[in-house]
Amino acid sequence: MATTRERMLETTGRLLQHQGYAATGLNQVVTESRAPKGSLYFHFPGGKEQLAAEALERSGQSWTGSLDEVLASARTTAGAMRRWVRLLATQLEATDFAAGCPVATVALEAAPHSDAISTAATQVYASWVALIRARLEDEGVASSRARTAAVAAVAAIEGALVLSKSSRDTTALRQAETYLRDLLS
Amino acid sequence: MATTRERMLETTGRLLQHQGYAATGLNQVVTESRAPKGSLYFHFPGGKEQLAAEALERSGQSWTGSLDEVLASARTTAGAMRRWVRLLATQLEATDFAAGCPVATVALEAAPHSDAISTAATQVYASWVALIRARLEDEGVASSRARTAAVAAVAAIEGALVLSKSSRDTTALRQAETYLRDLLS
Repeated sequence: MATTRERMLETTGRLLQHQGYAATGLNQVVTESRAPKGSLYFHFPGGKEQLAAEALERSGQSWTGSLDEVLASARTTAGAMRRWVRLLATQLEATDFAAGCPVATVALEAAPHSDAISTAATQVYASWVALIRARLEDEGVASSRARTAAVAAVAAIEGALVLSKSSRDTTALRQAETYLRDLLS
Repeated sequence: MATTRERMLETTGRLLQHQGYAATGLNQVVTESRAPKGSLYFHFPGGKEQLAAEALERSGQSWTGSLDEVLASARTTAGAMRRWVRLLATQLEATDFAAGCPVATVALEAAPHSDAISTAATQVYASWVALIRARLEDEGVASSRARTAAVAAVAAIEGALVLSKSSRDTTALRQAETYLRDLLS
């Protein structure tokens, strides 16, 4: 059974992904995670900022896991990115465009004035870049080129998620398949 | 002299760009725009949602204007995008990473549940795509290819802005120059 602390992080991660940072209140987190009143500052003495930073890391890792899976199962990096983009598009549609990137909304709201949130977001994106880069290097791409291409791939997907969620239409995300193929082949 | 309505839109646009939608309160808008109390619902009967949607359009148009300028002054589309990306990176650094895309934060927070905000964000992004597409077509790129490349370019820049603002480091944005050159040449 999940501990109170785990339930709070799971609930916070979901609320942050769907609503963003400012709209997510601590009372809502406590209620929806069925946590005892007063437990929040026991588990997260740094308050909302600490809770949000840890929740971002946790939900970011869940996307890192799905990226890792597609990279392990596809024959090429480009093929893996095609699968990942399709998975994200399907998930966006299935949730009425609520479930976009679990990190971007909060990072855009809070990273300029929160070290903890900036650090958490940076680490999540760096872990995606590292996975794609390592896979490209396995395919024989030179290290500096692999790094640049991996950053460009993550940026392309993040940007396509912004356009798709904004317009509630996954066209931009599905088109990203084509330029990711060109970028990574 | 700017009218009350114009000042409210300007103030809202700046607050939305720096703080996002949920964190921007109507009292703050009224105070910072030196608007008479009660004038908000006179000018914006649709309340915060209408005010935010109009402010997004307005601040999006300001970026459309700067994109239009670089496209008019550079010799190639790729060269124009390089200038635009450098301009955005400089602006992000000069504002301690507060002044990212004026549309993305609010769109990610609110587009899934606000038609007005989704429509405003969609129109802003579409106007950027249309400008880049038209310029590519002027260079002889076929229409469907020009459209796909223009969407990819806007997505690449939006994504690089997300990564750069999150990590308070413009490396991703500056690297986008290379990727955009390959995409648009």
